[in-house]
Amino acid sequence: MTVNALFVGSGRDWDTYAPALIAAFARLPRHVVLKADHAPDTVDYIVMAGSHIIEDFSPFIRCKALLRLWAGVEDIVHNETITFPICRMVGGGLDQGMVEWVVAHVMRHHIGMDRHILGQDGIWRDGFVPPLAEDRPITILGLGALGTACARALSALGFPVTGWSRTTKDISGIRCLSGPVGDALTQAQGVILLLPKTPDTEHILNAETLAKTAKGAFVLNPGRGPLIDDDALLAALDSGHIAHATLDTFCTEPLPDSHPYWAHPSVTVTPHIASATRPRPAADVIANNLQRGEEGRPFLHTVDRTAGY
Amino acid sequence: MTVNALFVGSGRDWDTYAPALIAAFARLPRHVVLKADHAPDTVDYIVMAGSHIIEDFSPFIRCKALLRLWAGVEDIVHNETITFPICRMVGGGLDQGMVEWVVAHVMRHHIGMDRHILGQDGIWRDGFVPPLAEDRPITILGLGALGTACARALSALGFPVTGWSRTTKDISGIRCLSGPVGDALTQAQGVILLLPKTPDTEHILNAETLAKTAKGAFVLNPGRGPLIDDDALLAALDSGHIAHATLDTFCTEPLPDSHPYWAHPSVTVTPHIASATRPRPAADVIANNLQRGEEGRPFLHTVDRTAGY
Repeated sequence: MTVNALFVGSGRDWDTYAPALIAAFARLPRHVVLKADHAPDTVDYIVMAGSHIIEDFSPFIRCKALLRLWAGVEDIVHNETITFPICRMVGGGLDQGMVEWVVAHVMRHHIGMDRHILGQDGIWRDGFVPPLAEDRPITILGLGALGTACARALSALGFPVTGWSRTTKDISGIRCLSGPVGDALTQAQGVILLLPKTPDTEHILNAETLAKTAKGAFVLNPGRGPLIDDDALLAALDSGHIAHATLDTFCTEPLPDSHPYWAHPSVTVTPHIASATRPRPAADVIANNLQRGEEGRPFLHTVDRTAGY
Repeated sequence: MTVNALFVGSGRDWDTYAPALIAAFARLPRHVVLKADHAPDTVDYIVMAGSHIIEDFSPFIRCKALLRLWAGVEDIVHNETITFPICRMVGGGLDQGMVEWVVAHVMRHHIGMDRHILGQDGIWRDGFVPPLAEDRPITILGLGALGTACARALSALGFPVTGWSRTTKDISGIRCLSGPVGDALTQAQGVILLLPKTPDTEHILNAETLAKTAKGAFVLNPGRGPLIDDDALLAALDSGHIAHATLDTFCTEPLPDSHPYWAHPSVTVTPHIASATRPRPAADVIANNLQRGEEGRPFLHTVDRTAGY
């Protein structure tokens, strides 16, 4: 007996995720047929990306679970026509993807790569030698799972890493601080924001705290847009105190095309991709959960409909 | 009694290295005076960069040693007016600098950073998700000190790393191969050249071996220019089989401004900087050797004038 899995998402989502899902399903004992157009009353599982939403799920009379391809469920969790479990993505490459984005952009700023990417004009400019990582102190604000993983990866590459968190952590090889955030930023040549958005963290990077960093520091924000006072950061970029900012999260997303970050020569905007779900590991998570359903075992990562996540 | 150290180099070399040298000398028991214009007969040590050469060293009648700021000595080793020891740079950040250049450029290609650096046009393009490092096999040709250090750093970041060398090595976590080089390149999505230049390694990356790599692979050459058959690489770039090459070494350096690499949209030229001496660690090596001289101990890293290095 075959199992019918309905893929819900845009054509681009299909192109991104379907090959990995088909490969992962092929390793299961049951024959799973992934299609974007199963008749609703024949669907056993819904595999859902995010850009195409069904309003009324009541025709899915035999569906056992909705398996989400990413972590957020705010667009479906309150839909009362969904009478089966909703499972969100946990794992699926989110943590490792964040480490890779952070390491990549730290290294870009660290070795001064832009001068070569943008300077292919035939002139051999060998005068600039960056410091070694051991001479480039980095401060990470936020030592949750993502901040800790990034701190460890940067420390392994030789950077002296300071981590700041609300409650003091103890991580081998990392200088862990709590208390006034300015103390953690003193002399930082790179600042990485990986805090959650709370009333206490809003505008944690502001004119006063930016002034604590070393002149010429870079800022990475793969965390949450409101962590930064945008006007203060733009002023620090204009003055040159902050040499460059690479920002992945914003107060409004997509970032409006009129926002000054887009046009600023010392800012790189990336479109909230730092911790995107990766097809292959995400497909493994989905396939594992589908197999649990077929075996009658409880699903993993089910959403608490009352709590909303 | 003060010790007079003469700095020999360009004004740019002075700006790059003098602050670190002065700081390192300040930690020595003797008072060391670094200047670019000591009278020759008052000079105790010559600290030499490379871009400004003295022809006749015979006026340096009390000089105890020439301390080179970088590894190469081919421009001075045969000068018979130098009657004191020549010490070349060993350590000084060369290995770590190479690891940082390689990791930076691998990460750049891996996460597809150029599309964001070059695409700040106000359009929110969140459709591209790179694979994780674990799905991006990298092959390093050459497992000497530099190749091994790079292999370990990339493996620690999650990349499956294959290393190839003339004689088989055994490095934990690295798939080490010898024999036909094409076998090591099969399915590689990134190729890094860190071999010495020998008759056996010349044009080791050629039409045949390039064809073994995965379509869309990137090439990094921080090793030696002649390792690559330039015409074959340009053809592979034009066909799209190789997506991008970042090249730091060339058959002729500086690379002539008319060379097709400069203008090719899929090539980044960097000016032989991947393993540049870093001022702070290099200054520590110089200061340590100067102190050995003051204590009457043998100098480290002295050049064998007959062998030429």
